[in-house]
Amino acid sequence: MANAPKANAVVGQSGGPTAVINASLVGVVEEAKKHPEIQTIYGAIHAVAGMVKDEFIDLGKLSAQTLETVAVSPSSALGTSRDKPDAAYCRRIMEVFEKRNLRYFFYIGGNDSANTAHILNTVADEVGFDIRAFHVPKTVDNDLLVTDHCPGYGSAAKFVACALMGDDLDNRALPGVKIDVIMGRNAGFLTAAAALGKKRDDDGPHLLYLPERPVSIGKFLSDVEAVYTKLGRAVIAVSEGICDADGETWAKKIVQTAEKDQHGNVQLSGTGALADFLAAQVKNNLKIKRVRADTFGYLQRSFPGFQSPVDADEARRCGREAVKYAMTQDNGSVAMKRTGGGKKYGVELFRMELKNVAEKTKSMPAEFINADGNGVTEAFVEYAMPLVGQLPQTEYLGRYPRV
Amino acid sequence: MANAPKANAVVGQSGGPTAVINASLVGVVEEAKKHPEIQTIYGAIHAVAGMVKDEFIDLGKLSAQTLETVAVSPSSALGTSRDKPDAAYCRRIMEVFEKRNLRYFFYIGGNDSANTAHILNTVADEVGFDIRAFHVPKTVDNDLLVTDHCPGYGSAAKFVACALMGDDLDNRALPGVKIDVIMGRNAGFLTAAAALGKKRDDDGPHLLYLPERPVSIGKFLSDVEAVYTKLGRAVIAVSEGICDADGETWAKKIVQTAEKDQHGNVQLSGTGALADFLAAQVKNNLKIKRVRADTFGYLQRSFPGFQSPVDADEARRCGREAVKYAMTQDNGSVAMKRTGGGKKYGVELFRMELKNVAEKTKSMPAEFINADGNGVTEAFVEYAMPLVGQLPQTEYLGRYPRV
Repeated sequence: MANAPKANAVVGQSGGPTAVINASLVGVVEEAKKHPEIQTIYGAIHAVAGMVKDEFIDLGKLSAQTLETVAVSPSSALGTSRDKPDAAYCRRIMEVFEKRNLRYFFYIGGNDSANTAHILNTVADEVGFDIRAFHVPKTVDNDLLVTDHCPGYGSAAKFVACALMGDDLDNRALPGVKIDVIMGRNAGFLTAAAALGKKRDDDGPHLLYLPERPVSIGKFLSDVEAVYTKLGRAVIAVSEGICDADGETWAKKIVQTAEKDQHGNVQLSGTGALADFLAAQVKNNLKIKRVRADTFGYLQRSFPGFQSPVDADEARRCGREAVKYAMTQDNGSVAMKRTGGGKKYGVELFRMELKNVAEKTKSMPAEFINADGNGVTEAFVEYAMPLVGQLPQTEYLGRYPRV
Repeated sequence: MANAPKANAVVGQSGGPTAVINASLVGVVEEAKKHPEIQTIYGAIHAVAGMVKDEFIDLGKLSAQTLETVAVSPSSALGTSRDKPDAAYCRRIMEVFEKRNLRYFFYIGGNDSANTAHILNTVADEVGFDIRAFHVPKTVDNDLLVTDHCPGYGSAAKFVACALMGDDLDNRALPGVKIDVIMGRNAGFLTAAAALGKKRDDDGPHLLYLPERPVSIGKFLSDVEAVYTKLGRAVIAVSEGICDADGETWAKKIVQTAEKDQHGNVQLSGTGALADFLAAQVKNNLKIKRVRADTFGYLQRSFPGFQSPVDADEARRCGREAVKYAMTQDNGSVAMKRTGGGKKYGVELFRMELKNVAEKTKSMPAEFINADGNGVTEAFVEYAMPLVGQLPQTEYLGRYPRV
């Protein structure tokens, strides 16, 4: 490996925002400033879209105070993009890189972003302009391969855990059936986090449905009926990606049905459709009067002032580490390995090949899901709890003895 | 006025939960323990429903630590009820009160709860069993008469303000139209709080629609188009109670249309219907590709670990004050008067007649709403900001100069 070139660097943020993607950005900037090999550290506005349009800001000029405010801000401070660059797009980016002598490329994002870094690195080789391309992991879905977990997951998981704690208390106060639809694409990790605030056997969520375990409406309804009969209430966490027994997502089925029906202006591909559909199923089939459904939407990924401290710290370390790797390596992705659990929780960072994380995703391992496919195991709680940090203490007085 | 009798007391929590209704409960309990006139302080499980079924716990037996955990817990720790007791229901409650020698009645809730206290006081007079009935204000809607504001509003407003700050950053990162539907029944106070995190002219929410100002779909769409044309994005806060130009709520119109259509299993009275309807209007009529809508649902009233400190403190003081009034008065409701604004913000508590708060509600005053009916004024921000407390600092880098 050649010595690190004296050149400029660029960092971009890709895909959906998280609560800590800006902590990773600040990690990249603060580490880059330590290395004389890196002259100017540019921020690409709206990720690859800004690179192709030559839209950059100079991150080295931001004050320490501004950087700290950025680090605690949700969403992507540079703006993001869902563009998936092909080879032609990458060649146009290369022209900008050459013009600006950008030889260090840091890209914070999910598996698609790792793939972009991989493609860009390949195209750079082809055009004979040597760059060092590094991926910094980020996703609320926690679905990246190899790494123990992803920055962004812990904070989103904390939001979801708190939301369900509050919602369970709300549902105890005014009993009924409450359904919450939670993000996570095709992985159940974020929905599973709904269980992290449970302290007692009768605490909600009483049922969790994850994309990893297809569920028919019949099974869903009989599960809900069993809980409701026993407790007189039921709180249910449902992943946006849950599938019917045939493997097709419920979200897709509902949209298809709605489109076929052509019922005027009401569109069912909006975020509330799955929640409203499931609530209607419970209301109509189980004849339960008080049924409510919420879809958490963007709050779970972009709520300010609500980072998990562990998550924010790890996100920042991942950003720093990418820059360190770039001093000695040609490309790679930053991954985390857990060095201990419980009170001894910690992580070690390591470099892995871009192609190992690019494009592919992972699901919840079987040992995290209960036998009935409607809950999580203690192994999941042990895995996720250190990432989320301390949850608020709450109390419900209905459990005290009557006098 | 006769001396305060030596007797037992009961406290109940009514209507929808809030983040600080338990702080009021703890205020009642800690003050009641100071007065030897009050022997046992009972908590009614599920409000009047528990009173009529003789279901109580002994709140005097809870440890100081448990009480402090209760005070920071969202939702109603005793459980709540939406029963509206008539005279017959009240007479059954009176039998329970007589049996237990319950002569102090504290009821934490909204205008319906004040009405219940009023009816119960009247029935007690009729049956010749003297009780002292006090109402402690609570509502996220902030729609009670006389009082400057209601405990519960500040914390819900803080949640909404933070949510919109995050959502605006999210929408800057991935530009499009974002619509957020917010609670508040027929009052716009909670939706108006969406504007409290705005720092710069181009910060969202760019448009706010309140129940106090009817809006046609045509006006709504032309407003959205104007913002989107100017900024390339738009964040819109909509109250669940917004009305069409004819004064009927949009929520009701959508449900009626849906019921008429009879389109299978999909039910539109769920919480997502208004948000999805408005998103579809924007998508179909303005041909904007990226349109998203969230309905905040119960998160905004029951999110743990997110109280406004001012709100929590005032809620507790209102609980204490009700007990103090009961030592010298026959009945009443606790209200707040603002003694100063800005940094000199403070409130003075006072007693008012139950009938002045019972049943009726108030709307946003005209001076809090902008001339165009799609935003709030500086007067509103001055009114609401002290109730919410400090909001998180955030930063977006897209506004920095390109290099």
